Amino acid sequence: MAVSEKIKEMMERSSWIRKMFEVGAKLREQYGAENVYDFSLGNPNIDPPDEFKRVLLDLVTESPAGMHAYMPNAGYPEVREEMARFVSEEQQTEVTGNNIIMTVGAGGALNTALKTILNPGNKVLVSTPCFMEYNFYVDNHGGTLELVPGKEDFDLDIKAIGERIDKKTAAVIINSPNNPSGKIYPKSTIKELGILLAEKSREIGRAIYLISDEPYRRLVYDDAVVPPIFPYYRNSIIATSFSKDLSVPGERIGFLAVHKEADDLENLMNGMILCNRILGYVNAPALMQRTVAKLRGISVDPDFYRRKRDKLCDALGKMGYKFIKPKGTFYLFVKAPGGDDLAVVDALQKERILTVPGRGFAKPGYFRISYAVDDWVIEGSLPGFERAIAALR
Amino acid sequence: MAVSEKIKEMMERSSWIRKMFEVGAKLREQYGAENVYDFSLGNPNIDPPDEFKRVLLDLVTESPAGMHAYMPNAGYPEVREEMARFVSEEQQTEVTGNNIIMTVGAGGALNTALKTILNPGNKVLVSTPCFMEYNFYVDNHGGTLELVPGKEDFDLDIKAIGERIDKKTAAVIINSPNNPSGKIYPKSTIKELGILLAEKSREIGRAIYLISDEPYRRLVYDDAVVPPIFPYYRNSIIATSFSKDLSVPGERIGFLAVHKEADDLENLMNGMILCNRILGYVNAPALMQRTVAKLRGISVDPDFYRRKRDKLCDALGKMGYKFIKPKGTFYLFVKAPGGDDLAVVDALQKERILTVPGRGFAKPGYFRISYAVDDWVIEGSLPGFERAIAALR
Repeated sequence: MAVSEKIKEMMERSSWIRKMFEVGAKLREQYGAENVYDFSLGNPNIDPPDEFKRVLLDLVTESPAGMHAYMPNAGYPEVREEMARFVSEEQQTEVTGNNIIMTVGAGGALNTALKTILNPGNKVLVSTPCFMEYNFYVDNHGGTLELVPGKEDFDLDIKAIGERIDKKTAAVIINSPNNPSGKIYPKSTIKELGILLAEKSREIGRAIYLISDEPYRRLVYDDAVVPPIFPYYRNSIIATSFSKDLSVPGERIGFLAVHKEADDLENLMNGMILCNRILGYVNAPALMQRTVAKLRGISVDPDFYRRKRDKLCDALGKMGYKFIKPKGTFYLFVKAPGGDDLAVVDALQKERILTVPGRGFAKPGYFRISYAVDDWVIEGSLPGFERAIAALR
Repeated sequence: MAVSEKIKEMMERSSWIRKMFEVGAKLREQYGAENVYDFSLGNPNIDPPDEFKRVLLDLVTESPAGMHAYMPNAGYPEVREEMARFVSEEQQTEVTGNNIIMTVGAGGALNTALKTILNPGNKVLVSTPCFMEYNFYVDNHGGTLELVPGKEDFDLDIKAIGERIDKKTAAVIINSPNNPSGKIYPKSTIKELGILLAEKSREIGRAIYLISDEPYRRLVYDDAVVPPIFPYYRNSIIATSFSKDLSVPGERIGFLAVHKEADDLENLMNGMILCNRILGYVNAPALMQRTVAKLRGISVDPDFYRRKRDKLCDALGKMGYKFIKPKGTFYLFVKAPGGDDLAVVDALQKERILTVPGRGFAKPGYFRISYAVDDWVIEGSLPGFERAIAALR
């Protein structure tokens, strides 16, 4: 066997993703791409704002000497300063450039933070439903991800989280707005979580970190606001990217921001800078660092996705599908009619509709629809959704 | 303590790098940057070839829809095909796009390959002197790096490597042209290594991988040729980047190429695609993938560095410094006059000359000079080098 035992096992465990992909490819081949309604991918389908292209073009035209050279592993000092202004505003808590590390997307940010803080055997808690890559990210660095069921409305269950915290708990990851549910955890929940973590940290005698994975923060609708986390807990780390709000996920640009009153701040920052380097990221892509630094406050128009959400929710709701209308992200997490998410995903595949079963987010009994798709995909799929729910009844 | 025990220890072990950096900063502050001769960094100091800017500008101007979106984790199929043509030529061995994975630089490539193949307790061999980040890269994935002393002329000691291989050996890393010595391993050595690894793989009953880290392959002088590795060993993986030959290290673009006759090829490729994803790289930066695919055969003019090498070698040789004139890279690895590399680095610091002690490459008794510096740095430093060797005698 060429690959390690662990990777072999991971490949087997995630083989359903490949199978789904293969089913999709086969359907496209058989019926033509225009007759397959693919809601399975979390890939923004709007192009970046015009300002992005303009800034990029200016930078490349100008091309100052050394523009593509190495810079400090944490990123350009002036870019870090700009991100700090950005975070200070959004988090209503002042941070400086020293509290920022530019990263290879949010994936790079999360791995860097986790490698820095995890001792062997440590546990990291996350509320379900959740993005299951966390499982890999925690395992990469010798930790174990523990799943804590969220509430019926997908809010965090603070009591349940509290009950699961022990001496081995190193961190709690939250993701708001949430993939796959679209849930935005309310301010009251974040406050309670902050109080709980402060209490539990005292109890176990060291900081339990709150890691907030928030690439969808600026993708919200209906005047929804994503509450900041820094005001409610000191030992907080934000891991984020510009993948969704600037619609540039392929470019791998994001950052880590740490509360400036976090315990042992200097070691934490230096440890993360070291880990960003030794994990082989080395630094966040140079040109993209310079680009995003010139785009504070710019993002794609959330209305692009809101309109799709509304169209889909209206139609599916009328058909009898049950869901909570999401106020953020571009995901809709729908109760599986009949209760079996695999059966629903299969029934939808027969209608050439591709979705992801809830068990892919540690929440069987639901399925995820990504509405980062062209309007024709939504419109074309509706008769199939209608037939599927009828068949499942 | 905010950071894990291991990271804390790593930070302490690598504190000499920070100290060196601080000494440099202090010297610059005290004497002015123009009076400090910094040879400590492996940061290409020539701008990318004009074609790089032109291609980048064209791509950004054109900006086809979805240009910054996610693509398959292994990279754009057409980019992988182009890299395959590139590798087929250079390695005199046909590979296809399926044998290529685009990565976040060579650091991303190495970590992806190592995570894929290493079982807990596995060992990876490397010949010294060597780039010590390998230590971290192997440790990241539960392996142990074992150092095998190279020969006096920095060539691989095939016999010594053979003696160190056992059932726990998963891979041998080679780096040619070599950082820090500039050594190009000759074809005869690569052949012998291939024979050894084939034999030892049979002995232990599974493939020992040859991982060739070769970002300096196209940075060679005096008509030197870096022999390919694919013709001499099937279970070979190339990890490389465009950092040095296109002078874009900050952009983090590289790739993995696997011999198409490697054992269990499909699992190996799928494992690496999975690891590239779950390590948080997700994919190589999109725009840079498209850019390098249009630049086959283009690289910076090695003469830029050759002239600096000649100037430095001529002057230091006359002063009595001992070294093997390198035929590749932009490093010169010099015998420490008196034998103590730390003493020499200190003596040079007194002359405001910054270099790296050989122990930073597991080879005490030498020091490394990076000549990726402006000519004034070389010229201005010469009196200091002269005084230092006199003082050390």
